[in-house]
Amino acid sequence: MDFRIEKDFLGEVKIPAERYYGIHTARSAGNFRLSGYKVPFELIKGFAIVKKAAAITNGRLGYIDELLVSAIVKACDEIVSGKFQEDFIVDALQGGAGTSTNMNVNEVIANRANEILGYEKGKYYPVHPLEHVNLHQSTNDTYPTALKIAVLFLLQSLSENIAQFQGVLQRKEKEFASILKIGRTELQEAVPITLGREFSAFADAVSRDRWRVWKAMERIRFLNIGGTAIGTGLAAPKDYIFEVVEVLRELTGLNISRHENPVSVTAFADDFVEVAGILDAYVSNLFKIANDLRLMNFLKEVKLKPVQPGSSIMPGKVNPVIMEATIQVAMKVRSNFTTVRECASYGTFQIVEFMPLLAFSMIESLKLLINATSMISSHLEDIKAVPERCEEYFSKSFSLVTALLPLIGYEKATEIVKEIGERGISDIKGFLKENLGEKVVEKFLSPEYLNSLGYDEDELEEFFNDNNPEGS
Amino acid sequence: MDFRIEKDFLGEVKIPAERYYGIHTARSAGNFRLSGYKVPFELIKGFAIVKKAAAITNGRLGYIDELLVSAIVKACDEIVSGKFQEDFIVDALQGGAGTSTNMNVNEVIANRANEILGYEKGKYYPVHPLEHVNLHQSTNDTYPTALKIAVLFLLQSLSENIAQFQGVLQRKEKEFASILKIGRTELQEAVPITLGREFSAFADAVSRDRWRVWKAMERIRFLNIGGTAIGTGLAAPKDYIFEVVEVLRELTGLNISRHENPVSVTAFADDFVEVAGILDAYVSNLFKIANDLRLMNFLKEVKLKPVQPGSSIMPGKVNPVIMEATIQVAMKVRSNFTTVRECASYGTFQIVEFMPLLAFSMIESLKLLINATSMISSHLEDIKAVPERCEEYFSKSFSLVTALLPLIGYEKATEIVKEIGERGISDIKGFLKENLGEKVVEKFLSPEYLNSLGYDEDELEEFFNDNNPEGS
Amino acid sequence: MDFRIEKDFLGEVKIPAERYYGIHTARSAGNFRLSGYKVPFELIKGFAIVKKAAAITNGRLGYIDELLVSAIVKACDEIVSGKFQEDFIVDALQGGAGTSTNMNVNEVIANRANEILGYEKGKYYPVHPLEHVNLHQSTNDTYPTALKIAVLFLLQSLSENIAQFQGVLQRKEKEFASILKIGRTELQEAVPITLGREFSAFADAVSRDRWRVWKAMERIRFLNIGGTAIGTGLAAPKDYIFEVVEVLRELTGLNISRHENPVSVTAFADDFVEVAGILDAYVSNLFKIANDLRLMNFLKEVKLKPVQPGSSIMPGKVNPVIMEATIQVAMKVRSNFTTVRECASYGTFQIVEFMPLLAFSMIESLKLLINATSMISSHLEDIKAVPERCEEYFSKSFSLVTALLPLIGYEKATEIVKEIGERGISDIKGFLKENLGEKVVEKFLSPEYLNSLGYDEDELEEFFNDNNPEGS
Amino acid sequence: MDFRIEKDFLGEVKIPAERYYGIHTARSAGNFRLSGYKVPFELIKGFAIVKKAAAITNGRLGYIDELLVSAIVKACDEIVSGKFQEDFIVDALQGGAGTSTNMNVNEVIANRANEILGYEKGKYYPVHPLEHVNLHQSTNDTYPTALKIAVLFLLQSLSENIAQFQGVLQRKEKEFASILKIGRTELQEAVPITLGREFSAFADAVSRDRWRVWKAMERIRFLNIGGTAIGTGLAAPKDYIFEVVEVLRELTGLNISRHENPVSVTAFADDFVEVAGILDAYVSNLFKIANDLRLMNFLKEVKLKPVQPGSSIMPGKVNPVIMEATIQVAMKVRSNFTTVRECASYGTFQIVEFMPLLAFSMIESLKLLINATSMISSHLEDIKAVPERCEEYFSKSFSLVTALLPLIGYEKATEIVKEIGERGISDIKGFLKENLGEKVVEKFLSPEYLNSLGYDEDELEEFFNDNNPEGS
Repeated sequence: MDFRIEKDFLGEVKIPAERYYGIHTARSAGNFRLSGYKVPFELIKGFAIVKKAAAITNGRLGYIDELLVSAIVKACDEIVSGKFQEDFIVDALQGGAGTSTNMNVNEVIANRANEILGYEKGKYYPVHPLEHVNLHQSTNDTYPTALKIAVLFLLQSLSENIAQFQGVLQRKEKEFASILKIGRTELQEAVPITLGREFSAFADAVSRDRWRVWKAMERIRFLNIGGTAIGTGLAAPKDYIFEVVEVLRELTGLNISRHENPVSVTAFADDFVEVAGILDAYVSNLFKIANDLRLMNFLKEVKLKPVQPGSSIMPGKVNPVIMEATIQVAMKVRSNFTTVRECASYGTFQIVEFMPLLAFSMIESLKLLINATSMISSHLEDIKAVPERCEEYFSKSFSLVTALLPLIGYEKATEIVKEIGERGISDIKGFLKENLGEKVVEKFLSPEYLNSLGYDEDELEEFFNDNNPEGS
Repeated sequence: MDFRIEKDFLGEVKIPAERYYGIHTARSAGNFRLSGYKVPFELIKGFAIVKKAAAITNGRLGYIDELLVSAIVKACDEIVSGKFQEDFIVDALQGGAGTSTNMNVNEVIANRANEILGYEKGKYYPVHPLEHVNLHQSTNDTYPTALKIAVLFLLQSLSENIAQFQGVLQRKEKEFASILKIGRTELQEAVPITLGREFSAFADAVSRDRWRVWKAMERIRFLNIGGTAIGTGLAAPKDYIFEVVEVLRELTGLNISRHENPVSVTAFADDFVEVAGILDAYVSNLFKIANDLRLMNFLKEVKLKPVQPGSSIMPGKVNPVIMEATIQVAMKVRSNFTTVRECASYGTFQIVEFMPLLAFSMIESLKLLINATSMISSHLEDIKAVPERCEEYFSKSFSLVTALLPLIGYEKATEIVKEIGERGISDIKGFLKENLGEKVVEKFLSPEYLNSLGYDEDELEEFFNDNNPEGS
Repeated sequence: MDFRIEKDFLGEVKIPAERYYGIHTARSAGNFRLSGYKVPFELIKGFAIVKKAAAITNGRLGYIDELLVSAIVKACDEIVSGKFQEDFIVDALQGGAGTSTNMNVNEVIANRANEILGYEKGKYYPVHPLEHVNLHQSTNDTYPTALKIAVLFLLQSLSENIAQFQGVLQRKEKEFASILKIGRTELQEAVPITLGREFSAFADAVSRDRWRVWKAMERIRFLNIGGTAIGTGLAAPKDYIFEVVEVLRELTGLNISRHENPVSVTAFADDFVEVAGILDAYVSNLFKIANDLRLMNFLKEVKLKPVQPGSSIMPGKVNPVIMEATIQVAMKVRSNFTTVRECASYGTFQIVEFMPLLAFSMIESLKLLINATSMISSHLEDIKAVPERCEEYFSKSFSLVTALLPLIGYEKATEIVKEIGERGISDIKGFLKENLGEKVVEKFLSPEYLNSLGYDEDELEEFFNDNNPEGS
Repeated sequence: MDFRIEKDFLGEVKIPAERYYGIHTARSAGNFRLSGYKVPFELIKGFAIVKKAAAITNGRLGYIDELLVSAIVKACDEIVSGKFQEDFIVDALQGGAGTSTNMNVNEVIANRANEILGYEKGKYYPVHPLEHVNLHQSTNDTYPTALKIAVLFLLQSLSENIAQFQGVLQRKEKEFASILKIGRTELQEAVPITLGREFSAFADAVSRDRWRVWKAMERIRFLNIGGTAIGTGLAAPKDYIFEVVEVLRELTGLNISRHENPVSVTAFADDFVEVAGILDAYVSNLFKIANDLRLMNFLKEVKLKPVQPGSSIMPGKVNPVIMEATIQVAMKVRSNFTTVRECASYGTFQIVEFMPLLAFSMIESLKLLINATSMISSHLEDIKAVPERCEEYFSKSFSLVTALLPLIGYEKATEIVKEIGERGISDIKGFLKENLGEKVVEKFLSPEYLNSLGYDEDELEEFFNDNNPEGS
């Protein structure tokens, strides 16, 4: 294998000749043999966009020659398009507050830009990783900025997937609108509901989450780019600082802005903590929906589509595997978000030095949520109701009597319940019809009545006069 | 001791004659001998307000006799004022989704209302805990509603305390505006900053948190009251459902509304998860501010006010105890909020059965944040800068040279750093003055220059022409 | 109210005349208005024992006059017996690494000892809180030592309660030994089991936990008492250091020893982390047992004893409230143990300054586990099997066929399953009897067969020859 | 691309002709597009060993033809050696309790074994994935068994790395034995210590962790292999059940045994929770050591070896990146272990369906700990003390006076401290020498004296008589 030699103030390092990364990257890759995970591509992409914006800005304002700018921009575009992935080799859990990621990007861009301009890799001429690619920047402003861009794009995808999920749930809400079933609280039968209404509860929860994702996007759209090392903008010219964020906005199409107090958002990572916190609401909802559905599938009120055989011993066994996987994602993401909070808390003085773990945890979590949402939402396209099973539980439930409370009152209800118990009656719906008349039972246990919020006193009275003249 | 006997479908229980609670409460107190913590008063208060609103509404609409209503209302007011605290005896970590808390409130109100009306405790006549105090309600709608009211009031207090905290930090920002010091990243000296700017970063972080608290209040203002057992409003009349929330708004002065999908917010506790998640951003900021300040106090750049002797062996030792306590609160609240998320996730079907732990964790956390904010903010009123110490670190720091980068360029900066290192110079500021002229150094290391964002190219050039004609 | 004035190097403080605490305590109580929780009595008790041991040792070795020693010992004994609880007023979440707790104890003991000797409170003569009660001690060695003693006593109680829990489960194992039922995996029916065997799985899990508690006791029995401020024993005489732990062992009856490297166990709190980690296994088991049982109760395979009415709307509803409370305890303790780990991690240099939160979290958790274990174990005394329901699920389950695999092979099993499906047979056990003979089915679906581990090839062959001569 | 068609009861799937996996694997890969992480190789290896052991056992006992056995064994050996990694394609966070991982392994082995025997892939003849490779097994016994084997091997590596870490720390303990420095508590100067003693505290903490790793290995050595679907051994012959674990022990060289109650260890994952809990003690220690060292490096008492440049703006800046990375690992592993606990808790009935996430979290964590231990331990080989800096803090510290307490008493100590303060003396060691004599100060502030535990009363008196005849 061919090598080239690169140098820094710590000494020399051999780099494989064909690689675009340089000495800092090589050192870092050697220093952190930890997780085996590379820095997520989403973050690298965010970085390439930031570098492109900085180069364009520096070019416009005359800080870098346009020829160099155009080579840098081309290199950045190539990275965004997915090239050079094998050149981003630093460990995702690297120490050093992300300097190694920044330098990996700087080196790849510089080497590729020089190549484009007809120069050799490893010489850093005419394009230099620090003097040009990193000009007027620091890890401490580019890293949070690149991460926010990555997070914003991921939140866009998540938002789309949640919208789709909501759509599926709403279609099922309609499909199951008239299927009567028993509602349950504390793992006990409670009062009647319809299956559609249960799905409406799911859909509404998810619609709240969709709104939350939008809110989350608002919360991390303020950038510290231009703040350089500690947010004061040291060594960066004012015109660059104000221009670069405009360029970034154009390039990304994202509604991003300069933060008014870059020192503060360089020292604190609370924006990320807030996003994680908001998304945790979705995580909880996702967990509960998946868990409720696997329980309902267990009770055979609904039937999840079989997607793979479930056992090597038990012929024909099929498990709610998509629900289980969804729950696992929820558990993992919740733990990751706790890590985000810890990283933000333990940062010291002017930056948060644990950004690499914070970034990894955020991006891993967002991708898991995006994929899990897509997975569960496709899967639920095919969920079927089992109305006869819902009806079976329904007809046999003591709790039916509660639906009649407005009509018969608590005292008579208790009497009826007692009689049912003593006589060991199992077809409770039938028994009620016998005792209270079919019309009454059909009205009070109809999907229409049960789906309306509360009862209407006048309507009730009218109905009562029409159907139950002798009183209850 | 005198007792009375009360009965339910499980049998009889002896109740101390003077107590206002009843049989359900007594059973629950016996069943759950767990934490020794009582249900937090804030939740009891929220419940009493809900019961009052329900009674007033039921009175207005003719469902309860006004005489009974007025007795119920009086009993509720007494509870809110702090009476009967020894009658709320159920364990905070009770099972049963909060039924025991609801029943404890119902029983105390009923017994007290009957007493007001001249009747005996334990007879539940004329006021009945279920038929009147709980009329058209269920634990599953009153509990989340009472909790939301409690949380909203606590968020109001928190908001006030954070505002005060922000004020203190802003006053210190001004007080310390011209104190130069060295900024630090990754526990290494980085580039110059002012102490005021550091406090401005704190103040800005806290101002973001203040805004977050307002947002959090918006997120939990939608109530499921009227939804009864599972959010369908079963056994509650429509007019009551729509009226009760109006009454609640009047009574509390809070901007609260009926949720459009009470089935969904009865089945899911995501609103609480979202509030916890939003507040987690404040928790992280609080941790970092306290930690930074105890480190700066350790470095003697600031001096925290001594509030108590710190050692029994070491004469005169004083520790940053308020910062330590603040950090502990942050750790505890972060754990509690994780519990909130778990409780919400593991609820099944139509409700979240782990509301008692969720409620306890929320309220304990909010009170801790309120108190810790007040504690740290009073304490920081008295924090002093130690400018000579800041100056000492500052003058001796290599990193000063970075402030001159725009003027002298990277190459000359590196040369200067090298020379300083080789010659073992410790008064680096002095050395720079010698080499670059006093005027230059004074300008570039002035608080004004360091506090402005980035450098102004034109101004720099002008200054450069005026002061450094022969070039750098 | 009468006051006395006390002084320290920070100034004067007024103390209510009748109180036994002194100026440090009063300052601390004012400084930390946080949780409203007092330091747990278990820790105060541990401290009183440590102070007693130190006084006795210092007396024996001639460092304190025996008259003073005897007064100190008497004061300590009174504290252990539960007196002066209203004098321990410092907040449980105090900052300052526990100095305030140590000083609170020192002051109460000194004032009470002086009172015993006929002197006034607040004068600290002849007994001085530092020079006598705290002699040769520091917060940093007494606090971890007192906490370890508290934890050891709590672990003893926990061990007893777990033993009792195991006993109950084993009795139920026997009681339910012959009740056939269907085993379930992934919320789907799997293969046959007996109810007894399920309880044996619970009992065995709990027996592992019992063993773990013993192991946990071994892990925290090494003390740093005598190490004073940072474990080096500074300002303490060698003879005291070696003697005091012997006295502690005598006084407590616990198998405790001096740690070989007190500097290390003063700087690190890993012993507590290990204990929390070991107990987390019990927490997981407790969660799963309670959750499984509430699900089995939901399926009506078992019947939990009703302990309180479960609803104000639904007559006769009873919920698995003890299981719910148990699950809540598991969630809370798991969060607390995470806090223990954080406290231990973030300690700096020679001590762990977050001991107060660590101690509070440990003790709260242990008490919750003790109480929850007692609660669930009493409750399960009364759990009943519902054999007919178990049988119902059992007879109707496809999965029965798997029990016959060794006899009929996979191919025939699949055929049978197919036929059952196609013909819509619901009494699967009956169908099998018809097809394979009653004797075969009775053997292979007998509790004896299902409770034995694996099948016996020879026995099977013999049985096969006897009963199924024409082959399967 | 060439394909073959495979079938199951859900239908047909196209498989690339050259791949060794089969239809179940392909379905699963399609079903779970989640994390993008493959099942960790360590688990696949564990599975291959289990399959080999089962095949050998089944061969020995005559359940599978030896020719097939030898092909299966060869296929397993190839997998263990690292072949076919691109055939293990199921997502690490798969649902289905690990069935997909088991089937992936079964299919690859079957196809490869058939290839070895000269047959085609995809025909599953003569070797069948279920009838031969999975014979007498279920996912539910093989998965926990394979995971325990994987964990045991990883714990062996961890143990070796921790031993090495301990060695490095002990060498540094000796190297730094005579370097005096000031000890610190609560981020304040406390009492004298030596740098060696600090490293001895680290080394001792790590030695406790080493012992813990051994204990952890004892805790997970009991296997449920042979228990099949739910631990009852259904469909497995007794002789196989008892033999297979013996074969596993031979093959692995691990001290593994059959668990007495396989039903219990199939239903519960507490063994893994316990291991995670035990290792959490190491995690806390690792965090604290890394944090202490980066703080000491910040104070320049020690000098960490520079391993990479730390800034693109600040020439020469070097950061404690290895410590930062170590802390990140600690945070991540702590979160993972919380996930392990959740997975174990939420399992239902006869198994823990969340084993895939549990396994992933365990293995990721163990590898991170192994790598981080190796990283920090190599790095600390090159840590240097900065004795002059230690001395500088030491000589200027008030706290020196505490070391003389046994000699001069508390009163005189306080006087001296006061005088030092009033006169603004900075060379405190010099001042003490002046006042108390050089010999006294040299003795009491010598490493020998400070490194011994406590003072020796007799020796002190003797020294006192010799050196300080006129009394203090």
